[in-house]
Amino acid sequence: MDHPVPTPPAAASETGDPLLLTPGPLTTSASVKRAMLHDYGSRDRHFIELNQGILERLVGIAGGQGSHVAVPLQGSGTFVVEAMLGCFVPRDGRLLICINGAYGKRMAKICQYHGRSHTTVEFAEDEPVAPAAVEASLERDRAITHVAVVHSETTSGILNPLTEIARVVERCGRGLLVDAMSAFGAVPLDAREVRFDAVCASSNKCLEGVPGMGFCIARKEALADTKGNSPSLSLDLHDQWRAMQASGQWRFTPPTHVILAFDQALDEFDREGGVEGRGARYRANCALLVEGMRALGFRPLLPDGLQAPNIVTFHMPENRKFVFERFYGLMREQGYVIYPGKLTQADSFRMGCIGRLDQDHMRGALAAVRHALDRLGIGETVA
Amino acid sequence: MDHPVPTPPAAASETGDPLLLTPGPLTTSASVKRAMLHDYGSRDRHFIELNQGILERLVGIAGGQGSHVAVPLQGSGTFVVEAMLGCFVPRDGRLLICINGAYGKRMAKICQYHGRSHTTVEFAEDEPVAPAAVEASLERDRAITHVAVVHSETTSGILNPLTEIARVVERCGRGLLVDAMSAFGAVPLDAREVRFDAVCASSNKCLEGVPGMGFCIARKEALADTKGNSPSLSLDLHDQWRAMQASGQWRFTPPTHVILAFDQALDEFDREGGVEGRGARYRANCALLVEGMRALGFRPLLPDGLQAPNIVTFHMPENRKFVFERFYGLMREQGYVIYPGKLTQADSFRMGCIGRLDQDHMRGALAAVRHALDRLGIGETVA
Repeated sequence: MDHPVPTPPAAASETGDPLLLTPGPLTTSASVKRAMLHDYGSRDRHFIELNQGILERLVGIAGGQGSHVAVPLQGSGTFVVEAMLGCFVPRDGRLLICINGAYGKRMAKICQYHGRSHTTVEFAEDEPVAPAAVEASLERDRAITHVAVVHSETTSGILNPLTEIARVVERCGRGLLVDAMSAFGAVPLDAREVRFDAVCASSNKCLEGVPGMGFCIARKEALADTKGNSPSLSLDLHDQWRAMQASGQWRFTPPTHVILAFDQALDEFDREGGVEGRGARYRANCALLVEGMRALGFRPLLPDGLQAPNIVTFHMPENRKFVFERFYGLMREQGYVIYPGKLTQADSFRMGCIGRLDQDHMRGALAAVRHALDRLGIGETVA
Repeated sequence: MDHPVPTPPAAASETGDPLLLTPGPLTTSASVKRAMLHDYGSRDRHFIELNQGILERLVGIAGGQGSHVAVPLQGSGTFVVEAMLGCFVPRDGRLLICINGAYGKRMAKICQYHGRSHTTVEFAEDEPVAPAAVEASLERDRAITHVAVVHSETTSGILNPLTEIARVVERCGRGLLVDAMSAFGAVPLDAREVRFDAVCASSNKCLEGVPGMGFCIARKEALADTKGNSPSLSLDLHDQWRAMQASGQWRFTPPTHVILAFDQALDEFDREGGVEGRGARYRANCALLVEGMRALGFRPLLPDGLQAPNIVTFHMPENRKFVFERFYGLMREQGYVIYPGKLTQADSFRMGCIGRLDQDHMRGALAAVRHALDRLGIGETVA
C-alpha cells in the first residue's frame, strides 16, 4: 500500500471549487459570482446608478461621508496603489515610504518608475512600522511632503499602527497615503479619526468581490489638488474623478461584470454587519488557524498582537520530512489551495483566512494539514 | 390614447438583458458568463495552464507562432494601449501618431502624459489614414522611431489600410504599433504579412469575452528591446512578459473570472471559424444594419468601402421630430441599448453590430428603430 492513510473527500466551495486559503484571489460566494451573469451597457443609466451606489457605500465604510469621495480604477490592487502615488505626490513632492514587507518595497519601486523623489524608513518584516521613527524622519527631512504606509502588510500579515502613524503625519503637517488592500473592510478605519489624503483597496480582499477593480477613497480637498500630477492617463485618479462627477461614467470601459459582483458583495458585507461583522468572522478564522497550526507544531512568524486577521505566515518547519511542494500538493488534493511560495525573507509559507470561509472551513483545513503530515510520515507534530 | 402604436415585447439576450448595440461592453453568450461561476487561485498550476493556452491562441490568431508572444494586462483597452506606447517608444524615441478619430487623439494624450516626443499626421474622421502621408512624414522627420495607428477607429467605425501603412513603415525602417481594439478577431491581421512591433486589443470586443483585460501581441525581438522603457510599473509589458516566462504567473492579481470567461469566449471563437467566421457574421450584421437604416432615411457617415464591420455612425437626422434622447429611450424600452452620445465631430450617433448578435437581432433592432420613429411621429423616413 502506497498510501496507508485514506484521503477524505476533497473540500469544495458552493460552486465546487477548491477553497482558496491565499491572500487573493479569494473564495467568493456563489451569489457574488452569479451577479456576473448579466451584460450591462457601461454608459447606460442603470449602470451609472449602480456605480454611484457602490462609490457612496465605499465612502461610508471609511466614515468619509461629506468629506471624502471614492474613485474606482480598473485593474489589480497594485494599479490603484500606483495611481494613488502618481496622483497624490506632486512632481516637486517627496515621499517617505514606510517599509516592513514586499508591498512597502513595491511602493518604492513605483516611485523609481515615476522618477518621484522618495526616501524610506524600514523595519524588519515581523516588526510594525514605528510611529516615532516616522516622526524622526519627518523632522529630519523637511522636503518630505507625503508619507505612504501599508495598513496590513500582506507579505507577513502584520498590522501596522495606522492611527498612531496618522497622528504623527498630521502633527508634522504632511499628507498620508495608505495601501489598505488586505485590511479594508475587516480592520476598522474611520476618516473622522484617522486623517488621510487617500486610502486604496480592491474589490477582491475583505470585501469579497471578484478581482478586477480597485478604488481610492480620498479627502476631497486633497484630491482636488492633484490635477496634472499623474504620470499616466489610465491611472489618473483626478481625471477619473472629474469625468465621473460630470457624467457618472468611467472614462474607459469598466469591468462591468466585476462591478456587478462587487455590488452584490457589498450587499453581503452589509448583511454580515459591515466591518464589525466581517472582522469578527475573520478574527475567529484566524484564531482557529493559528491555534490549530501551533498544536501541529507550526510556528507563526508573528506574535498574536501583531497579526492582522487576513493571512498567517508560518516558519518553514525544519523537519526534513516536510517538503513544501509535497505539502502544497497534498493540501490541493484535499481541496485547499494555499499560497505556493513565500514573500518574506524568512523561509516561510502562508495560509489565508479571508474570503467566503467560516470556522468549519478552517477546521477542515486543519484536518487536511493533519492528513498531509500523515502522508509525509510526520508524527504528532512537525516541530 | 397617449401611445397609439403598441410597443412589442422588449428584446433580450439569453440571460434576459437588453441587447448592447454599442462599441463595448458587448452582449456576450450565456456560456461565456457562466464560465465566471468559479474561483481560481491565480498562482495555482491549473490557472497557469489555462493562461498559457489563452496566450498561445492569441498569438495564433495573429499568425505570430514562433515569432511573436502575447502579454496580457489587467484593465481596459486604453490601459494596454498606454502600456504599449510607454514600453515600445524608448525615452529617446519619437512617435508619429496617425489620427482620424478619438482613439488616435488619445494616443497623443498618452504621449503628453509620458513626456514622450511625438508628432501627428491627421485626417478627417471620415477619411482613412493615407499611407503616402505617413511615408512623407517619415521621410521629412528622421527622428521618428515608431508609428502608431488605430486599425479601426471606433469613433466612426472607419477601417484604416493597415497592410499598406505597415509596408511604408517597414520600408522606412521604423517600428509599427497598432491599436487593433475593435478589429482584432474580426478583421484579418497576419504577422507573416503585416510587420509590426506590437498590436494590442482587449478581451471584450470582437473576441466576445467580458471586459477587464487587454493584451499585446509583440514581435519577440522588439519586446526584448523594451526593458526599462516603461514609465509605469503596472503597465510595464516587458516586466510582465519576463515574469510570465519565469513562472507562468501574472505579476499582480489577475482578473481570474474575466480570464475564465475569455477562455470560453476563445473556444466559441474557434467554433465559429476564427477570424473568417466571426468576421462573416459581423459583416452580415453590419450590411443589414446599414441597409435597413438607409431605408429608414438615416445616412451613414462612411461610404461602405471604408466601413469596418463593428460600429456604424449615422448623421444625426435634421428632422426636428427626431430628438435623440427620446430615440435612445425608446430603443432602450424595446431592449436595445445604443451608444448614448457621439465621439465624432459631426453631429451623429452610433449603433454597434458586434458581440453575441446575429442577423435576427439586427432585424429586431431595425424594427425597434421603425417603432421608435412611429412614436416620435415620424412617417416613412426620417430624411
